[in-house]
Amino acid sequence: MQAAVMRANHAPLEIEDVRIDAPGPGEVLVRTAASGICHSDLHVVEGGLPMPPPCILGHEPAGVVEEVGAGVSGFAPGDPVIGCISAWCGECEVCLRGKPHLCGGASLQRPEGSASRLSKDGAPVLQFANLSSFAEKMLTHERSLVKIRPDMPLDRAALIGCGVTTGIGAALNTARVAPGSTCAVIACGGVGLSALQGCRIAGASRIVAVDNQAWKLDLARKLGATDTVDSNDGDAVAQVMELTGGGVDYAFECLGSQPTVQQAVGMLKRAGTAVLVGIVPVGQMVELHAADITFQEKRVIGSLMGSNRFRLDMPRYVDFYLDGRLKLDEMISARIGLDGVNDAFDALRKGEAARQVIVFDS
Amino acid sequence: MQAAVMRANHAPLEIEDVRIDAPGPGEVLVRTAASGICHSDLHVVEGGLPMPPPCILGHEPAGVVEEVGAGVSGFAPGDPVIGCISAWCGECEVCLRGKPHLCGGASLQRPEGSASRLSKDGAPVLQFANLSSFAEKMLTHERSLVKIRPDMPLDRAALIGCGVTTGIGAALNTARVAPGSTCAVIACGGVGLSALQGCRIAGASRIVAVDNQAWKLDLARKLGATDTVDSNDGDAVAQVMELTGGGVDYAFECLGSQPTVQQAVGMLKRAGTAVLVGIVPVGQMVELHAADITFQEKRVIGSLMGSNRFRLDMPRYVDFYLDGRLKLDEMISARIGLDGVNDAFDALRKGEAARQVIVFDS
Repeated sequence: MQAAVMRANHAPLEIEDVRIDAPGPGEVLVRTAASGICHSDLHVVEGGLPMPPPCILGHEPAGVVEEVGAGVSGFAPGDPVIGCISAWCGECEVCLRGKPHLCGGASLQRPEGSASRLSKDGAPVLQFANLSSFAEKMLTHERSLVKIRPDMPLDRAALIGCGVTTGIGAALNTARVAPGSTCAVIACGGVGLSALQGCRIAGASRIVAVDNQAWKLDLARKLGATDTVDSNDGDAVAQVMELTGGGVDYAFECLGSQPTVQQAVGMLKRAGTAVLVGIVPVGQMVELHAADITFQEKRVIGSLMGSNRFRLDMPRYVDFYLDGRLKLDEMISARIGLDGVNDAFDALRKGEAARQVIVFDS
Repeated sequence: MQAAVMRANHAPLEIEDVRIDAPGPGEVLVRTAASGICHSDLHVVEGGLPMPPPCILGHEPAGVVEEVGAGVSGFAPGDPVIGCISAWCGECEVCLRGKPHLCGGASLQRPEGSASRLSKDGAPVLQFANLSSFAEKMLTHERSLVKIRPDMPLDRAALIGCGVTTGIGAALNTARVAPGSTCAVIACGGVGLSALQGCRIAGASRIVAVDNQAWKLDLARKLGATDTVDSNDGDAVAQVMELTGGGVDYAFECLGSQPTVQQAVGMLKRAGTAVLVGIVPVGQMVELHAADITFQEKRVIGSLMGSNRFRLDMPRYVDFYLDGRLKLDEMISARIGLDGVNDAFDALRKGEAARQVIVFDS
């Protein structure tokens, strides 16, 4: 199969023919229909997320089941699916407490040292995030797949695999935004725009989008922001405090940086909740004003992958798209072929794109 | 009336005759029966909490109503009461959302510039925390008082005015500790020992007390700790992780320092909650590992005054004492007269006392 292989950091991906194994027990082979391109893919290329080459990136896919391994009962060839970057075991404490996204499904993975699923001329090529969707096919555990309605377009379904679920789930699952709330969303990329839509779907009355790029704020308004704050116009916290008359109930930090985490906590009203969605680089510390958290009973809570309950949430988000509540078409900046992936990374580096989607010929 | 007056920072309090006004509209004059001595009082003496002298400290009292002002309908002379450091208006957003402890009741206070309630030879003496309980009488708004059962001993009731409510409420109200949980309490002073009891009353299965003083850990065991960690024996987080096999559901930080806040967040299991109860000095920043909060969906939440709903919670805690669930006798290190207050501060400075209580002659 054709795949875009990362042979070295800081170098363009190379389109190569790669061998993919047949599905083993519990595994499913999926023909990739579409894959979003996410900042995390770019982070790997640029060395910010450690992943040794050669590997195949891509972790926001939808596709169609081609073949199932022994013991797989929930999927059959032809099923449309979304691929997830983690799996869940269904047996551990977090799974049993309704937080399967925190499981990771390590107990389902092949033992370390076993043969790679992917190879080139006999040499292993590593799989990224359990998926490697910058390739015509994916081999993954059935617990990393969610079957969806057949009337869902797969290029838009792909977005639900990572960015949309991360954002909308932060609002609906992690924070459980209440109708009538006042919300702020800091950084309006794919995740932030989805968090914003989650706030709208939950019935928030005020949704303040914060960014430093005018076109993202325009897009945020189309997707449901009631107000926008351009952080080029001065202190974002002061602007939000003035707009809202004293702060927000929920602030979603969707960038992953020290200053924006501080902004999120700073723009809360008493008893407000800051939801940390963006991933601040591992090991980097964020300074918070602890007495402010105590005196005002602020809450700072982490949200990973939208506290996603896989087979419950992703079909729900598909329904939201098909009934018109979740807007995905507007979030897609471009549809490209696999060979356009390096140009797409360039657009991402320049901050020119919301979501670019690789579409494979079917 | 007799009162212990702070005439200057860093100096002993002076026992003086002070004039107290008659109650105005909405106000109640209370004969002080007992007042706990809290670290916050000492902080004022030492300049850590800004409060200009001359003033009368003390903010953890119980007493008996002596006289009520115009419009006061809920109290009558002879009623036993606990005094609270804040009041609530009952009309603002936080009050209406069940968080009256975040209100402060500023709208109930006399306008700035109006005559002081307390004076000495015609010169005003400031009131601390709406109470000034290091004095034979207190004049306060009725919304700062809670009427209690007449069979409650007032020296023990006094503790419920601040430290006990702050600790037990952090477990019961703010965190809502679930039965069977694993908890850690960092710093076992009056507040920490009360948080620990809150965890026990809520049905926690493991309660790990963390401190660096052996006698406090012994007392913690008597009050319900199932395990103790002496932070002199090495990294407290590593010790708690080993004891609990991977972290706690709830960690209560009851000291108010940067290292212990970091410890509280560090000793959580996935999806665990760190409750910031201690007041880190205002303006001092605490460095937290943001990616750890996101990846593990940890929660860092502030707890002020035990998220106390005044007339709901304090009578409940009195019931807990009288039915044997809340242990207060063990927490009282000494009962002293008003003139013993300076010696009591010395004991507090040396870390030799849990709670010392001033008892007034009745």
